[in-house]
Amino acid sequence: MKTLRVGLLGCGQVGSGFFSLLTAKKRFFETEIGVSFELAGVAVRSRKKKRPVRIPPSLFTEAESLVRDPSVDVVVELIGGTIEAKSLVLDALRQGKHVVTANKALLAEHGDEVFELAHQMNRAVCFEASVGGGIPVIKALREGLVGNQIDAIHSIINGTSNYILTAMSEKKIDFKQALSEAQAKGYAEADPTLDIEGIDAAHKLAVLARFAFGGRVHFPDIYCEGISRIRGEDIAFAEEFGYRIKLLAIAKLGADGLEARVQPALLPEKHILANVNRSFNAVMLHGDEVGDVLFYGRGAGARPTASAVISDLVDIAKQPGRFSATTAPMRAIRKNLVIKSISSIQSRYYLRFHVVDRPGVLAKIAQVLGGHKISISDVIQKERSAGSIVPLILLTHHAHEKNVRQAITRIDRLNGVRGKSQVLRIEGDA
Amino acid sequence: MKTLRVGLLGCGQVGSGFFSLLTAKKRFFETEIGVSFELAGVAVRSRKKKRPVRIPPSLFTEAESLVRDPSVDVVVELIGGTIEAKSLVLDALRQGKHVVTANKALLAEHGDEVFELAHQMNRAVCFEASVGGGIPVIKALREGLVGNQIDAIHSIINGTSNYILTAMSEKKIDFKQALSEAQAKGYAEADPTLDIEGIDAAHKLAVLARFAFGGRVHFPDIYCEGISRIRGEDIAFAEEFGYRIKLLAIAKLGADGLEARVQPALLPEKHILANVNRSFNAVMLHGDEVGDVLFYGRGAGARPTASAVISDLVDIAKQPGRFSATTAPMRAIRKNLVIKSISSIQSRYYLRFHVVDRPGVLAKIAQVLGGHKISISDVIQKERSAGSIVPLILLTHHAHEKNVRQAITRIDRLNGVRGKSQVLRIEGDA
Repeated sequence: MKTLRVGLLGCGQVGSGFFSLLTAKKRFFETEIGVSFELAGVAVRSRKKKRPVRIPPSLFTEAESLVRDPSVDVVVELIGGTIEAKSLVLDALRQGKHVVTANKALLAEHGDEVFELAHQMNRAVCFEASVGGGIPVIKALREGLVGNQIDAIHSIINGTSNYILTAMSEKKIDFKQALSEAQAKGYAEADPTLDIEGIDAAHKLAVLARFAFGGRVHFPDIYCEGISRIRGEDIAFAEEFGYRIKLLAIAKLGADGLEARVQPALLPEKHILANVNRSFNAVMLHGDEVGDVLFYGRGAGARPTASAVISDLVDIAKQPGRFSATTAPMRAIRKNLVIKSISSIQSRYYLRFHVVDRPGVLAKIAQVLGGHKISISDVIQKERSAGSIVPLILLTHHAHEKNVRQAITRIDRLNGVRGKSQVLRIEGDA
Repeated sequence: MKTLRVGLLGCGQVGSGFFSLLTAKKRFFETEIGVSFELAGVAVRSRKKKRPVRIPPSLFTEAESLVRDPSVDVVVELIGGTIEAKSLVLDALRQGKHVVTANKALLAEHGDEVFELAHQMNRAVCFEASVGGGIPVIKALREGLVGNQIDAIHSIINGTSNYILTAMSEKKIDFKQALSEAQAKGYAEADPTLDIEGIDAAHKLAVLARFAFGGRVHFPDIYCEGISRIRGEDIAFAEEFGYRIKLLAIAKLGADGLEARVQPALLPEKHILANVNRSFNAVMLHGDEVGDVLFYGRGAGARPTASAVISDLVDIAKQPGRFSATTAPMRAIRKNLVIKSISSIQSRYYLRFHVVDRPGVLAKIAQVLGGHKISISDVIQKERSAGSIVPLILLTHHAHEKNVRQAITRIDRLNGVRGKSQVLRIEGDA
């Protein structure tokens, strides 16, 4: 039986979940898997903090000494953030330890440095828990789909945003109400910015794209738009047309570069991604051999995340002697993937205007769109009393993002158009 | 670089796809993955047969000699069937070779023998391609979800049946028309029995259940019902109630034994499995840590299957020296999983009768159901001209299968009820 000494950095919700799993299933891992996990120490900021599990006080230690403890084989980093976590992870690698981390922000923003050092030290950096919680999508990318060239990722990888959009759709509530509900139920944090503005999804997309396409992804170049601008009426109108609105993280590799963006978008209601609801996540990959494959599950939470961390630890334990890092991280630091400008992309669009309900307004809008080579496929305008403000919804055929943006700027200045217009892409159409 | 000598048994559609992939990506595997695959020989029944790829004639050989060729490290079995394939696979293992196979029938019906011998010989039997084509679900079960006890499988694992049911729904055609279309497009074989009667799905379910629950599954005990009894009207009525009909392969581990069955069933239209359409497959697993996870993709076809075979070969190549079989197969032969009788199961039901449209028939049916403790939740009866035969559809609350069967036997004998009634389970309700 192989023994692996584990140093745990961080013991919040996820760290506590990991501790529980490791403790509860110790015998299972020993008898069924043939691996004995020993916890060398748990480094926390506050030893007094209330935790869902009781950590034996003798295990508490300092992070700096834990990553240098010669008895430790693997450091499990569950602190989060990019400053302290980065220095500890790099330190652990320099000390010849393997690293398991759930930290997408660290890998998205400093992945080059981390993977380069791991490569030099011939140590593993495993990060199944960083994207999609307990869904084994990183393993699928690195091993299960090893015979494929992956050329597209379409994903729902922020559970908070998906919970909010699902609640807005099912309960006919607006964004603020849905956010409050998500916060009350623990699906959104007190400061929800990272989640609702798409930054967390962009971090995860950067990690996926690096390993799917095998190259460096410059994180700040990922176009990132959240869900805070989505109104209840947008969801309702989209549904009238047979679509649902989802926050999608998309990356596509083309001959002319990489498309990488996080955006709320419309999906046909029968599209499998349109049926990923509540806090669930899903990652759809397209491989040249396998075609479309999709992985779905809980993208966050203590137990799903712990499930992913454990699978990384078992993989490390099963490697003979020194870990020979899988080829993916090495391929991933070799080339730069250049992200295309968002304005170069073509798509179908959902456009929602608030207009004064009087003759001629639709004609003027249609004229501006036509002038920018944008043709309309569907219209909804609901009658109200003359002179009131009514929503006008247009779906377009394929158009250039650049043209759409220019047209919208002009339309928003038209007499009879009130407030800022809504522009959403339509994805997944046949 | 590691070199792996591969002997290929069978070169039909899937074998040709495997040959193409191996040839086209040889350099990729060598430079990026660090594995050199050498094809030692290709054993086929007819060397003259027209194939989608040209096999160099020097590679053709006899199956019996290929599995005994001392230079061969791994035998890839893509013959199918359970007689010749079984003797060749066992022979290959006895000769100390690893085996990669796509053969679900072999593993479902003779898995005990195959895995036991592999265990004795300390050789690998890899079978990612046997369930779900290119979807890496076996890897997920064996590695990605290693920290979980799996307690339920809900799956759509026969692409032919799913294609037919999707066509019936989308095109409003009946079973026979949809089957002909599937045959014309190559999604169904000339003799479609294995697919449409659920036997192929039951084979795959046996393989999944063995590794999900860690035990022997006696294949003949799996309850198996196909889709040939499903009428267009059943699909249409189910949709009126907000459901879709899918051929589900379900296994659940409970304290009182294993539930294992293949059946067409109704799923709520927003259920993610209800949105797995055309020839796509999906496997949903429930783990104690991770909760629900789902894997989706093409369940058949030459290239997806080849993708799975390649990932197995890379796994074997990356194992140090002798392959230490993962723990799963060893766990899997240890205990017997006893399958419960189908009549002990409880469910909600969709019942469709053809009745003479006259007063009192519904009352009589409802009376029989009530007498068997089956209560009705929803009814559709469409008016036609008096005295004509009309469909009557009832949805029930939870009821015992045994009671439902007894009630239906009585109802089918009632005056005013014509033909055999339809009984389908409703799955996935909250």
